[in-house]
Amino acid sequence: MVMASLGVAAVVAMAGPAAAQSADQYDRTTAVGAEAMNMVVLDNIFIFFCAVLVFLMQAGFGLVEAGLTRAKNAANIMMKNLMDVSVGVLMFGLIGFSIAYPGFDGGWFGTAAQTFGVDGFFDNTLVDISPESLADGVYPLAVPVDFFFQAAFAATAATIVSGAVAGRTKFVGYLAYSVLLTGLIYPIVVSWNWGGGWLSARETAFVDFAGSGLVHMTGGFAALVGAIVIGPRIGKYDENGKPKAMPGHSIPLAITGVFLLFIGWFGFNPGSQLQADMAVPVIAVLTAFAAAAGALAAMVTSWLTMKKPDVSMAGNGLLAGLVAICSGIGEMSAFGTLLTGAVAGVLVVLSVLAIERAGIDDPVGAFSVHGVCGAWGLIATGLLATTSPINGATESAGLFYGGGGSLLVTQLIGMVAIGVFVSVAAFIVFGGLKAAGLLRVSEEEERAGLDVSEHGAPGYGPDMLVASSV
Amino acid sequence: MVMASLGVAAVVAMAGPAAAQSADQYDRTTAVGAEAMNMVVLDNIFIFFCAVLVFLMQAGFGLVEAGLTRAKNAANIMMKNLMDVSVGVLMFGLIGFSIAYPGFDGGWFGTAAQTFGVDGFFDNTLVDISPESLADGVYPLAVPVDFFFQAAFAATAATIVSGAVAGRTKFVGYLAYSVLLTGLIYPIVVSWNWGGGWLSARETAFVDFAGSGLVHMTGGFAALVGAIVIGPRIGKYDENGKPKAMPGHSIPLAITGVFLLFIGWFGFNPGSQLQADMAVPVIAVLTAFAAAAGALAAMVTSWLTMKKPDVSMAGNGLLAGLVAICSGIGEMSAFGTLLTGAVAGVLVVLSVLAIERAGIDDPVGAFSVHGVCGAWGLIATGLLATTSPINGATESAGLFYGGGGSLLVTQLIGMVAIGVFVSVAAFIVFGGLKAAGLLRVSEEEERAGLDVSEHGAPGYGPDMLVASSV
Amino acid sequence: MVMASLGVAAVVAMAGPAAAQSADQYDRTTAVGAEAMNMVVLDNIFIFFCAVLVFLMQAGFGLVEAGLTRAKNAANIMMKNLMDVSVGVLMFGLIGFSIAYPGFDGGWFGTAAQTFGVDGFFDNTLVDISPESLADGVYPLAVPVDFFFQAAFAATAATIVSGAVAGRTKFVGYLAYSVLLTGLIYPIVVSWNWGGGWLSARETAFVDFAGSGLVHMTGGFAALVGAIVIGPRIGKYDENGKPKAMPGHSIPLAITGVFLLFIGWFGFNPGSQLQADMAVPVIAVLTAFAAAAGALAAMVTSWLTMKKPDVSMAGNGLLAGLVAICSGIGEMSAFGTLLTGAVAGVLVVLSVLAIERAGIDDPVGAFSVHGVCGAWGLIATGLLATTSPINGATESAGLFYGGGGSLLVTQLIGMVAIGVFVSVAAFIVFGGLKAAGLLRVSEEEERAGLDVSEHGAPGYGPDMLVASSV
Repeated sequence: MVMASLGVAAVVAMAGPAAAQSADQYDRTTAVGAEAMNMVVLDNIFIFFCAVLVFLMQAGFGLVEAGLTRAKNAANIMMKNLMDVSVGVLMFGLIGFSIAYPGFDGGWFGTAAQTFGVDGFFDNTLVDISPESLADGVYPLAVPVDFFFQAAFAATAATIVSGAVAGRTKFVGYLAYSVLLTGLIYPIVVSWNWGGGWLSARETAFVDFAGSGLVHMTGGFAALVGAIVIGPRIGKYDENGKPKAMPGHSIPLAITGVFLLFIGWFGFNPGSQLQADMAVPVIAVLTAFAAAAGALAAMVTSWLTMKKPDVSMAGNGLLAGLVAICSGIGEMSAFGTLLTGAVAGVLVVLSVLAIERAGIDDPVGAFSVHGVCGAWGLIATGLLATTSPINGATESAGLFYGGGGSLLVTQLIGMVAIGVFVSVAAFIVFGGLKAAGLLRVSEEEERAGLDVSEHGAPGYGPDMLVASSV
Repeated sequence: MVMASLGVAAVVAMAGPAAAQSADQYDRTTAVGAEAMNMVVLDNIFIFFCAVLVFLMQAGFGLVEAGLTRAKNAANIMMKNLMDVSVGVLMFGLIGFSIAYPGFDGGWFGTAAQTFGVDGFFDNTLVDISPESLADGVYPLAVPVDFFFQAAFAATAATIVSGAVAGRTKFVGYLAYSVLLTGLIYPIVVSWNWGGGWLSARETAFVDFAGSGLVHMTGGFAALVGAIVIGPRIGKYDENGKPKAMPGHSIPLAITGVFLLFIGWFGFNPGSQLQADMAVPVIAVLTAFAAAAGALAAMVTSWLTMKKPDVSMAGNGLLAGLVAICSGIGEMSAFGTLLTGAVAGVLVVLSVLAIERAGIDDPVGAFSVHGVCGAWGLIATGLLATTSPINGATESAGLFYGGGGSLLVTQLIGMVAIGVFVSVAAFIVFGGLKAAGLLRVSEEEERAGLDVSEHGAPGYGPDMLVASSV
Repeated sequence: MVMASLGVAAVVAMAGPAAAQSADQYDRTTAVGAEAMNMVVLDNIFIFFCAVLVFLMQAGFGLVEAGLTRAKNAANIMMKNLMDVSVGVLMFGLIGFSIAYPGFDGGWFGTAAQTFGVDGFFDNTLVDISPESLADGVYPLAVPVDFFFQAAFAATAATIVSGAVAGRTKFVGYLAYSVLLTGLIYPIVVSWNWGGGWLSARETAFVDFAGSGLVHMTGGFAALVGAIVIGPRIGKYDENGKPKAMPGHSIPLAITGVFLLFIGWFGFNPGSQLQADMAVPVIAVLTAFAAAAGALAAMVTSWLTMKKPDVSMAGNGLLAGLVAICSGIGEMSAFGTLLTGAVAGVLVVLSVLAIERAGIDDPVGAFSVHGVCGAWGLIATGLLATTSPINGATESAGLFYGGGGSLLVTQLIGMVAIGVFVSVAAFIVFGGLKAAGLLRVSEEEERAGLDVSEHGAPGYGPDMLVASSV
């Protein structure tokens, strides 16, 4: 019965206007009508599964952050991650999507209205699945799947901050931050490039394939500012300002989280191709190479600087490699990928140590992984991008591939713009919350742990927790 | 051998640019009408991956249930989940599938026999993959993938009960329940609607797209009856019958489980479309909206009723939203979805508190999440279903969309039928087990924990467990 | 550009019989056109997602191994798994792939060079994705996706050993082993069959569809030799040589790992079909059957031999069923699958007990699961393989299906060859490491736990760990 009526709708849709996709724009499918629809369906199903993988990253972030911090704050961290995805999906649907992609007035809800009539929000969105409802004329994605994929990215950007401010942040303040980041700050940054804004409109266009800058620098710089404004956890620095180790409560959970993020990244990067084609597996291989290079480089660096191969550093190194390769993965060689990942692995270890010495308490290294290595990823593209059919233009090659410095200049401009804008915006948000007394819990609450003080129940039962005051 | 020809052929293929794909080499695309086969293959691959996501829910259920209960029973809970999927797949294959879908005599095994000849069970089931072996003429699913997807649902229905009877149930009794639910009770309920039975045959057909009623109410009401028949855990109520908090041993594990269930639901709901089409991403978006609305509403409700934003309530709220939207997600607007999810988030918190006060010990809130919100989902469809090309008929719209009350009446009839039938069946099963002395462990065994008493070894080593007697 | 040439090939392939599916039944697809390319893209996307599932197994292995051993070594185990995948991907790319599949000189890096010109390693690998770059003429996989899938298998093979040598191995020694296994030992074994070598060239070709022998016996026998050469953990045997139980620190984590491996196996087995077709769901169903039969059989066997249904045995039984069915799943009936899985479930319990009594300390049962049941899987194929369109030849049927003993003989030859070769190679590796003093930590280090002694920080914080000396 279902199919019967759908069949009718399909026939109508097919009989309608000529395909929005001209051969120039989308020449895998030279035909119009049903066979184009074949590929369109595959594209949409592909992005659907990729988005699901990106949503899995929320579990990964939760485990990494909870594992690398204290047991007494573990439930609070999981709650923040739960809310990041809940708030993120709704805020990005309400206004974020329309800010990020100005073509879609009113966000996803508004887009539904626009596409399906004024009653869109109240109407069944299944009515029209014709080619005209595709998100744009270049990529064959329908609005819903485009939104689904991008909303997962928004939630990711938000949740990066969670670990950096762990152990001392009021839950209500964090909620306010999450609303503003997913509804406003992140969408504005995205609009500059993916949304067709000034960074993409430059003569030499900004290259940020999967978001080293747009996603990770945004999360990373918000994390840095958050950690600075809120100040270190009690006990992190002694009276002389010397940092003390505050080991996480569960490395097994943290590294499980790293594995889940690794898996999720195979939705993040290959999915950013935005269509199901033969480039997808290449991007997948390069993603794995960057991760491997980052993990090995961070392990070696920690071995050299800290005397032993540190487990959480290796895990962060794997993530650092993944963050850094996001920008250029569509245009990098295997060589460029391995170099980008390896440098990220070195950088993340040095950055974690430097940030800690600088008096900034970022318990999970969120800024080092996402901010520093996100920025490095943008630069790496300016250096190592090859000439490729994706951007198609010689002047977009990196410095080492004979493209001149114009791409590097664009990348640096984008990097500075993102870093400055996000830092200022995050300062306003966290500064405002601080001024309003909504940012940091009291000393007693911090010592008791946020699980009990903010949520009314411990994250671990009395059968598991040795000492809640640690 | 498969790969053997590979190496050789590879060299040949590399040698020349002539069409690598001749019909001889790759004749899937010419054998039975290439273009139809294309989409049929895509449909089957799509459902395959969706079913894998649904199987992932087993890990999610295990973590939620183990996390929300005591450490001394954690291994027992994981074992029950392991057996639910093992028993479920085999029992559903043996008889359940044929009861649920009467078109397939003898279950999957029998179907194989029917399709491939009398030796089906003993023959290689790869012999025939022609279109005639497709499950039916409407949905282009082959019998195996249809079975694979539905078997995952059967295991899901069974495992809902696991948490409700945690901490005091004999393992052998639970095994018996699992056999009966996946082989008999759940398949009978499914036959009423998805199997073409009386609920689907009503003039205004019952609407349960992904199983708010068929799957979740079945599991939820079995959970309620199980919890009532077996009685509360020792120490749950004081001498005055006042409930005492028995906090779970690991909220981080529980919320990780919630995330995995969230991910798995993207197989559950979109996969219930039963084909790869452009409706899939819409369903995915609405799934995310329902989850987000449920989590936020439950958080707010717990904040108001319990003074603090409770983490496990928020997690259960996310699940409640997902449970409730299953029924109508094919016909709901964004508005209807958000409302359905939000109401579910409120209901689950109130229900958990009410059930506890009523003297029923459901340690993880299984009935509140799956039973109450499953029932709410059926009602919500009767209220909020729009007119859509999926059901195609005005009289199937919900009350608020001008469809009259006929859909609501059908939904209520279905709700009552499922609730009553499952409650009676579960009462017979659990009552019978109780009468046979197979339901509840002794007091000493319960105090010692089921890990040791039922399985002979603790779930946590002496290096982790503070006190096994808690 | 890419699609242009493919489109041509597609049209040629398309000129076949009319569609079996009428428009009435399934009218989304009525046109002809670029369908063959559609299928190639679908195949590559399918394998991409399958490979992602296989990579998820790394998380599963980490959790199983960490959960079944001591808390004081948990971070070390996660680190080894992290490095197995990092080292594995790079070593397999550098040399392993070209050894395993001799058609691809120089590994994946070399293949890129070969396919794309001498600058391949430094060039953008996205340049050419035309049909000529497909891995071969039989399966339509591009080199990158073929590599991606196979590299995940290599990492899997390596990580099997991790648990068998847990708790006493120097990290640097393990790294050396991992390099040699993924770069040399495993690729050589693979070349014998999947790479077109002598086992596949026999008159009755060796059957190892997804790697009971090539992957699991390789890992399992390396695990056995590793465990023997390094010797038991301190405290495993008393002065009379009687084994003492050393329970794992977290069964919930271990069983979560089992679930993740179960999920990953749906990439492992169905993906080994190497194309998206209607056999995929059949393989998925049989995979689930084998797992279920293994889990139930192991549970019953542990109940009979150990008095209680043991949780870790049931988990290992599920894995054992999966390992055993890998070899013959392309040619097995439902009957053969259930029998193969059930026997594996029995074998794994008996083997674990026997290995322990023999004085070999394999803390997680890696040899029993992967070595013993991998070997059993090869034999089972020799007994139970049906005649099927995959191998197409009567003489390749198993003994019980009238194929004569020739397949069984080949399977036994392959089994012995793999067992002997891997054992000798592993003995050289682990023996060499031992001679060089790089294999085992000191007694004090072992007592302190590898997390602290090898990596400088405990895997669990002081808020979680009861006693690090246990």
